[in-house]
Amino acid sequence: MLDELKKEVLLANKSLSENGLVTLTWGNVSGIDKQSELVIIKPSGVPYEELTMENLSVVNLDGELVEGKKPSSDTPTHLLLYKRFPEIGGIVHTHSPYATSWAQAGRDIPVLGTTHADYFYGSIPCTRPMTETEIKDNYELKTGHVIVEAFKNRHYKETPGVLVHGHASFSWGSSAKEAINHTIVLEEVAKMGMWTEQLKGDVLSIDRALLDKHYFRKHGKYSYYGQN
Amino acid sequence: MLDELKKEVLLANKSLSENGLVTLTWGNVSGIDKQSELVIIKPSGVPYEELTMENLSVVNLDGELVEGKKPSSDTPTHLLLYKRFPEIGGIVHTHSPYATSWAQAGRDIPVLGTTHADYFYGSIPCTRPMTETEIKDNYELKTGHVIVEAFKNRHYKETPGVLVHGHASFSWGSSAKEAINHTIVLEEVAKMGMWTEQLKGDVLSIDRALLDKHYFRKHGKYSYYGQN
Amino acid sequence: MLDELKKEVLLANKSLSENGLVTLTWGNVSGIDKQSELVIIKPSGVPYEELTMENLSVVNLDGELVEGKKPSSDTPTHLLLYKRFPEIGGIVHTHSPYATSWAQAGRDIPVLGTTHADYFYGSIPCTRPMTETEIKDNYELKTGHVIVEAFKNRHYKETPGVLVHGHASFSWGSSAKEAINHTIVLEEVAKMGMWTEQLKGDVLSIDRALLDKHYFRKHGKYSYYGQN
Amino acid sequence: MLDELKKEVLLANKSLSENGLVTLTWGNVSGIDKQSELVIIKPSGVPYEELTMENLSVVNLDGELVEGKKPSSDTPTHLLLYKRFPEIGGIVHTHSPYATSWAQAGRDIPVLGTTHADYFYGSIPCTRPMTETEIKDNYELKTGHVIVEAFKNRHYKETPGVLVHGHASFSWGSSAKEAINHTIVLEEVAKMGMWTEQLKGDVLSIDRALLDKHYFRKHGKYSYYGQN
Repeated sequence: MLDELKKEVLLANKSLSENGLVTLTWGNVSGIDKQSELVIIKPSGVPYEELTMENLSVVNLDGELVEGKKPSSDTPTHLLLYKRFPEIGGIVHTHSPYATSWAQAGRDIPVLGTTHADYFYGSIPCTRPMTETEIKDNYELKTGHVIVEAFKNRHYKETPGVLVHGHASFSWGSSAKEAINHTIVLEEVAKMGMWTEQLKGDVLSIDRALLDKHYFRKHGKYSYYGQN
Repeated sequence: MLDELKKEVLLANKSLSENGLVTLTWGNVSGIDKQSELVIIKPSGVPYEELTMENLSVVNLDGELVEGKKPSSDTPTHLLLYKRFPEIGGIVHTHSPYATSWAQAGRDIPVLGTTHADYFYGSIPCTRPMTETEIKDNYELKTGHVIVEAFKNRHYKETPGVLVHGHASFSWGSSAKEAINHTIVLEEVAKMGMWTEQLKGDVLSIDRALLDKHYFRKHGKYSYYGQN
Repeated sequence: MLDELKKEVLLANKSLSENGLVTLTWGNVSGIDKQSELVIIKPSGVPYEELTMENLSVVNLDGELVEGKKPSSDTPTHLLLYKRFPEIGGIVHTHSPYATSWAQAGRDIPVLGTTHADYFYGSIPCTRPMTETEIKDNYELKTGHVIVEAFKNRHYKETPGVLVHGHASFSWGSSAKEAINHTIVLEEVAKMGMWTEQLKGDVLSIDRALLDKHYFRKHGKYSYYGQN
Repeated sequence: MLDELKKEVLLANKSLSENGLVTLTWGNVSGIDKQSELVIIKPSGVPYEELTMENLSVVNLDGELVEGKKPSSDTPTHLLLYKRFPEIGGIVHTHSPYATSWAQAGRDIPVLGTTHADYFYGSIPCTRPMTETEIKDNYELKTGHVIVEAFKNRHYKETPGVLVHGHASFSWGSSAKEAINHTIVLEEVAKMGMWTEQLKGDVLSIDRALLDKHYFRKHGKYSYYGQN
């Protein structure tokens, strides 16, 4: 069942550690099958090298386990994002160190260069801190809610990632593989953003014209990057 | 004798360098057999690639060599911790660079995010500086004493690691393998803590509710992380 | 056709990722055949591991595709540099993190030590920000223009690299291979320059005598470094 | 001739890049045969992977080539150190990034922890800047002179390394292998020293008692570290 998607989610989870994006078991990738509305996600606490097609968790959008091991404790966050951001095909959550440091600092990552503009059309938001009530009651679901709240004035397809305040990042894309790429970009711009500030404290976002140029040479109908 | 424990301690010592937690021979791992009260520990000054089941040191709680090579010069610190923190099964000492930098700065590592809260229930303490007398007389034993002193108001099982002022870290756990995991976590939160401060100087600890949520979703009877 | 040059450009593109100078597909290397005035360059959006002698793009100096896949979107920048800096044999563009952070900070890299002086005879310039008109109209060509403008008062052979404001670096050399070496040097001096400033805020450039000594012991007719 | 020493110098040169201590060809290791007063040193500009027993340079203390390829341009510095620091058996020069950043900042590395105290009995000095005359006339020899000058009030055996102002480090030891170890230590304490300052600006050197304890538990007749 869903063998192709399982394979993609399996490879994406393993690529987290191959790309240096994860420590121990602190990250998980999921993918959704739009037809059946089933989500494949990393099982909770299982090391990446022990993941197989068989032990991956399959859950429905109500969070009920359909197949495999007990799913990641972050599953309710993933499920909410699939419901509220309907064109997403894959989601990555991980504690990669630079992005996590921005999340711990509680700061949005400003657009400081074209590397950022090539993938994220504007700053990468950090959510507001969660309230004590949100933390105590259905924490993982409420984590999804504060993420969605951060996208009130921006589009999830143009900004395919977020920092959860005091926690770490979530990234997404049309597929698990694209979500991994966005995670790589997020970590890289987090790193270069920190260094840029260290070189010049009062650094400003790049001009709108440069943001537009780089974002739209890669996205949308006037894009001209790549082979298509 | 104690072959299973020896194997675990051997692998744990080798994993120090595989995980980038050690330079040259600046780290050692031990494990205790509760039944016989014998401790297996890295021999002094032996490179990790030369460690074998045969040359590992076996000592009793009085520090007497029972088998193998001359034990690590840090053995008296390990032995004191086994005596005073009775539920510990394994201990790691290493000069990993981020944790050591906090130790050299003489600072506790505050709880700046959920990565920390997942493993350490509160800040990771730095001991007070040792006195000249403590340094000159039974230095390695007194190192154990200042560690124990730092745990007067916290529990060693909830905070499985410490920074020794001007020196480096000790971490522990129910086994040598768990102690290695805690060392990995300590180094990672030391790194992200430094970067978080660089991004936002006056960064505060996360709220108690978030600390509780993350610590207790992984520990204790209401935990729901992992497959059990 | 041009098999030797293709091979060199192929290896140089692959060496970008082997040397940790590139993330995803954010870099491209080209080489020129002076006889035929044909330029070999990385095709747009193709991962480094999929590059072959066959899919490399061959273009003439007017930017017309002669052979292979659609060339890098940065091709007009490369072509302008070949026209204006006639003794260049190879060009590298990449978003390596330290150099890119200086570009994002909009700063020249000063000569802070002999490592820099061994390869770059003076500071490594950062271009002025491009205007909205330059960005909107023929962006990649205009990127070349602002680079050339930055070399009004210095020689491109003595300073074989540049930072494009808010973007990333371009480096060059007598061949693609030498351009890769200059990219490695640029990234290394960008890194050490940042760290030097962190250790001593008001750090000054090294003395002219030391700059001359190191540059000219490796370059020009009085050089005495190496086997020739 | 001198096959054993050649082998050691060969391995030490190759270990520079294996330990991440060198970029391109920016480092060289030498060893001396006390009997014959011949020095084996890396040939100038040859990549580490092309080094063999046959192309290593053999020079006498007057700098005359006895065998092999043209020696490193830094040879006169090595030779002066062998003459003035008579108990040295091996020397390493390299531009490793953290040590070089301290050299570029023109600062001594203070003793901020026991890692440093285990190998260097006091701060690691940075030489004074060289004068224009020293730079223009016999530069590499004069580099040796300013190093020796920095040891007027300390012993080269207790402080087996130095930073040359605006340039990079030299380290030494009883053998080429020990010199490599001291280079590893120097780079590590340079890194942790920078980070310690970033965590606590006004950090002080450790107490004399702790410096003595750690240095002398590894060195001299009362040492008790290691298997002997």
